[in-house]
Amino acid sequence: MVKTILVNRQWIVWIMLVFFQYGCSKTIDNSMILSFGTEISDDATPDVLAQILNSNQNISKIKFEKGIYHFYPDKGLEEYCHISNHCDVMVSTAFPIKNFKNLTIDGQGSTFIFHGIMVPFLVQASHNITVKNLSIDWYNPFHSEGLIVARDEKNRTFDMQISEAYPYEIRNHQLYFVKEYYEHNIGQSILYDPQRSAIAFNTEAYTNLTTIKKAETSRYLSNIKYKYDFDFRAPEYKKLGKEDRLFVEEIKKGLVRVHNHGKLLPQVGLILTMKGEQGFNRVAPAFRVTTTDGFNAQNVNVHHAGGMGIIAENSANLTLDNFNITPSKGRMVSTTADATHFVGCRGKVILRNCTFNNQLDDAANIHGTYQIVEDVLDEYRIGVRMGHHQQKGFVIGVPSDTIGLVRLSDSFDPYDQLTVKDIQYLNGRYQIITFHQKLPQGIQKGDLIENLSAYPEVWVQNCNIANNRARGLLISTPKKTIIEDNYFSTEMEAILIPVESSHWYESGSASNVLIQNNTFQDCQHSGYKRGVIRLDTDDDNTNLAFRNIEISNNIFNQFDNMIVQIANVDGFKFIGNTISNSGTFPQLFPDAPAFTVDVSKNVVFENNTYGGKAKQLIVTDESSGDIEFK
Amino acid sequence: MVKTILVNRQWIVWIMLVFFQYGCSKTIDNSMILSFGTEISDDATPDVLAQILNSNQNISKIKFEKGIYHFYPDKGLEEYCHISNHCDVMVSTAFPIKNFKNLTIDGQGSTFIFHGIMVPFLVQASHNITVKNLSIDWYNPFHSEGLIVARDEKNRTFDMQISEAYPYEIRNHQLYFVKEYYEHNIGQSILYDPQRSAIAFNTEAYTNLTTIKKAETSRYLSNIKYKYDFDFRAPEYKKLGKEDRLFVEEIKKGLVRVHNHGKLLPQVGLILTMKGEQGFNRVAPAFRVTTTDGFNAQNVNVHHAGGMGIIAENSANLTLDNFNITPSKGRMVSTTADATHFVGCRGKVILRNCTFNNQLDDAANIHGTYQIVEDVLDEYRIGVRMGHHQQKGFVIGVPSDTIGLVRLSDSFDPYDQLTVKDIQYLNGRYQIITFHQKLPQGIQKGDLIENLSAYPEVWVQNCNIANNRARGLLISTPKKTIIEDNYFSTEMEAILIPVESSHWYESGSASNVLIQNNTFQDCQHSGYKRGVIRLDTDDDNTNLAFRNIEISNNIFNQFDNMIVQIANVDGFKFIGNTISNSGTFPQLFPDAPAFTVDVSKNVVFENNTYGGKAKQLIVTDESSGDIEFK
Repeated sequence: MVKTILVNRQWIVWIMLVFFQYGCSKTIDNSMILSFGTEISDDATPDVLAQILNSNQNISKIKFEKGIYHFYPDKGLEEYCHISNHCDVMVSTAFPIKNFKNLTIDGQGSTFIFHGIMVPFLVQASHNITVKNLSIDWYNPFHSEGLIVARDEKNRTFDMQISEAYPYEIRNHQLYFVKEYYEHNIGQSILYDPQRSAIAFNTEAYTNLTTIKKAETSRYLSNIKYKYDFDFRAPEYKKLGKEDRLFVEEIKKGLVRVHNHGKLLPQVGLILTMKGEQGFNRVAPAFRVTTTDGFNAQNVNVHHAGGMGIIAENSANLTLDNFNITPSKGRMVSTTADATHFVGCRGKVILRNCTFNNQLDDAANIHGTYQIVEDVLDEYRIGVRMGHHQQKGFVIGVPSDTIGLVRLSDSFDPYDQLTVKDIQYLNGRYQIITFHQKLPQGIQKGDLIENLSAYPEVWVQNCNIANNRARGLLISTPKKTIIEDNYFSTEMEAILIPVESSHWYESGSASNVLIQNNTFQDCQHSGYKRGVIRLDTDDDNTNLAFRNIEISNNIFNQFDNMIVQIANVDGFKFIGNTISNSGTFPQLFPDAPAFTVDVSKNVVFENNTYGGKAKQLIVTDESSGDIEFK
Repeated sequence: MVKTILVNRQWIVWIMLVFFQYGCSKTIDNSMILSFGTEISDDATPDVLAQILNSNQNISKIKFEKGIYHFYPDKGLEEYCHISNHCDVMVSTAFPIKNFKNLTIDGQGSTFIFHGIMVPFLVQASHNITVKNLSIDWYNPFHSEGLIVARDEKNRTFDMQISEAYPYEIRNHQLYFVKEYYEHNIGQSILYDPQRSAIAFNTEAYTNLTTIKKAETSRYLSNIKYKYDFDFRAPEYKKLGKEDRLFVEEIKKGLVRVHNHGKLLPQVGLILTMKGEQGFNRVAPAFRVTTTDGFNAQNVNVHHAGGMGIIAENSANLTLDNFNITPSKGRMVSTTADATHFVGCRGKVILRNCTFNNQLDDAANIHGTYQIVEDVLDEYRIGVRMGHHQQKGFVIGVPSDTIGLVRLSDSFDPYDQLTVKDIQYLNGRYQIITFHQKLPQGIQKGDLIENLSAYPEVWVQNCNIANNRARGLLISTPKKTIIEDNYFSTEMEAILIPVESSHWYESGSASNVLIQNNTFQDCQHSGYKRGVIRLDTDDDNTNLAFRNIEISNNIFNQFDNMIVQIANVDGFKFIGNTISNSGTFPQLFPDAPAFTVDVSKNVVFENNTYGGKAKQLIVTDESSGDIEFK
């Protein structure tokens, strides 16, 4: 049976065409074709949603006639979501792709424009989902931009020109940008250079704007006793003990003067991008994929999102091919957080032929989750606590997964392994895990757990990663990782491989990493004294965290000295790379070496070409011994 | 089988005693007895919750050994709740009473002390639930109190002494009270007279404090287009166009000076109670009961809640007997919102032998819900929109319920009735209702719907309603209502019977109301020129809204003139009542009449005794004609 549901212009008319039907081996192709006008007065949400909800998950294709479709939240399906590395938020969607199998959504070149706090694609508990041939944008962005037009060193002020694209209010000398269904204050900010459409050189000396200072008066707060650990970084505690430091005044319509900034005053001609306070400003990622095996995005452009381009959690086998994060409408910023982010994913994560430009956080961040042992309940059960507020609601695994018990002061590797029998979700911060095996004697409150079954193999190939805030690739997986044929020009590290425990509780080490045939162009240009590639741990100890890392046949064309920094590595090869000085920017750290090596062993440099300006190529600590650059 | 689960002091030990077992006619008495120490270091939540979750709804009693039990949210069961007339909020509970039948929770005289944003009892989809013999309080209240110690007419400031019970911060000259897991600013405020432990006389001249004014600058906001109606009163839009007007400074530790108040300066010796901004300050009612048939609370004291004492929605047959709302620890305030509130309830609502004192809103508010016809989708289906943000998520009925279609400009009575087939919940503001019958031709966007099957009979008997902000009883049901043998001393109306449509969207008229043998003592003392009892409609028209109202054999001992105001009534009897002047306060409106009658008919006054001071007893409009007081 081939069934085609065709809604053509007149969006109530449904025509069902039954062409032919045959026996047990019949091919089912339930193809739904939706078509809407291109007028802004239309709202595609109710009809797309109705047809998806009415499909009973029994469709294989949703096709859109090429056009511009507007999606409003007012009649969307709402769901309260704990989204990893985002806010906990009530979102609206027209695409609740829940419990679907083998579904392709084909935009056929359409543009989907979203309004307000929506998640365009909410994919959950599904298998083999493909989204292709479409572009995603927001009518009003979740960030705002202002052109620096004047600076007054004497009075320590600078002036911003704000266009009509960014409606604003000033309330008690504070600046608020007002959007459809949303508003934000200055909050997190960074400078863009419109000439390069990239993060401004040395922006760390100028931004973030120093919006916050210590509050003038706090009384009797010590009378408040918390029975359990709590997270002062969480939004509900964020204002404690703090108050606004900056204040603004409107000089004339669209021209706002900013007073009391504590860093260097931004240069005239740069664009200040602002996205509101951390903890409140990630409310609408373009794709959210959870507990799904098989997700593919092909030929998809994400021009904006109030959060990440894609956040995938507890999913497997995800491929993004020609998945492009690029700004639209002359904006400096594309997505306001990472281009892509994968938490607790397994199988393969493949990023191929993608452009990740101008987003306000990493191009890709791939890691697991540490959870904190809060209490040992009996011989088989522990209570665990989520360490970071943006991990609230995250369930670390499924029955039969192997959980590692970790005490980072002793080792980055687990001291024991257990198999999950059951996880009881009680609240966003606290869950109870039952294991098949008895708990080890030594387990104690404060130990961490990680899911050893939930790390992916990673392959990043032929991607353009540039002009964004923060890192390029932030990768923490002990599985095989290949990073090849990419172009990087990032304001922080191009590639950061961490063991991170104390802030974000993002788990994972690295083994068998191959970084080859990439070009690194003027990375780390925002002012940090760090390498273009770094392997580093939060914890200051001599335990080994990383194994078998190879960086070969890459081009590093850098304005400054630092190329690679490693720590806690066993087995590092740096082979056949070419290093040159680009001269693009003045050097910030002319005395820095090209390489630093700490608490590492089996480190080899071979067949490299150095044309940079470092006076000392490699600095090693005592334990790593002398290493020769070849 | 009688099964007793006994956890005695040592709260891990479970002893199961099986006494006897017999055949099909066996009596099942699954009795769970919990016991905890009285130390604050204990947290009763994990164990109470575990035993309730593990019970599989197969218990008939939960008993608590008499003691003081502390409940913390950290290990509670979390649920995101749209709670009617409260905020939309993630709450934690140790008592998820969901899908239980014939369950009694007996505190045996215990006190339960809650910490943070918890709902002590979350009762849902259950039958015949009884909670008895316990007291509820919060360790940190959701409101704060300050003693007025000075006023300076010249500089227009007043000073507040804030005790250590109310930790605070001053941030950018704004006052914030910090609690466990919560904070609030001044927001809604009202004066209490500590001599009377009641709302201060004429407080409307002094409070609310004038916290807000128009923002100084708004630019380009007209560029923001909303496709659909939206609610500017909702929390997400609340700050638009506004800024703080008041500012404060700390004179010395615990002494805070308030500047720029726009009403009269509060008098020295009174206590200012503050609970934060409307729309953000109702997060933790003591009881939430939804879709439950049969709920009884007996011998229950609620000393505080960050919201209502009880909010019941879509439930039937609720009896509160000796259910008392009273403040503790010398606080002026008990619950920060209504003592009791019933929305869309049916069967009988009985309030008997209760004390409703010192809460910051009505003693009881009983009504249905109007929802707005947003769109007519086909012959059988409409989309409806919730008019008020505190109705988000409210589902108006169940299949087979009779829905009235209302156009208030034509009549307070429905112009047609339809039967619910199905309600599709899409989001907090929007649902799709399918009816068994075809929609009437004339139905149009903007019409209202109400559920005619979801109004209760009401009986309020022998209650003490006093010292609270706002009204005593606010009752909107066309079913039989008896209000007898109560004592009222409220700062606004003792009894308000409204048809209310344009602000709160609380539906319901009134028929067959008997108000007898009550005492009304100095009601309406906060400054409004209104009757002690009022029947009134929002809509300025001559349609009849109320029928067969009798007020008989009551005592009105009032400091001021106005006793009863009625409008839109057909059939009103005022018989055998005794009215005197108490002399408690100076008269605020000495020229006001005792009674006003507008657009009403069949109005009778008989056998009353008037000992008040009004120069004119009854003022009527033209349509109601002359009415004689007898």
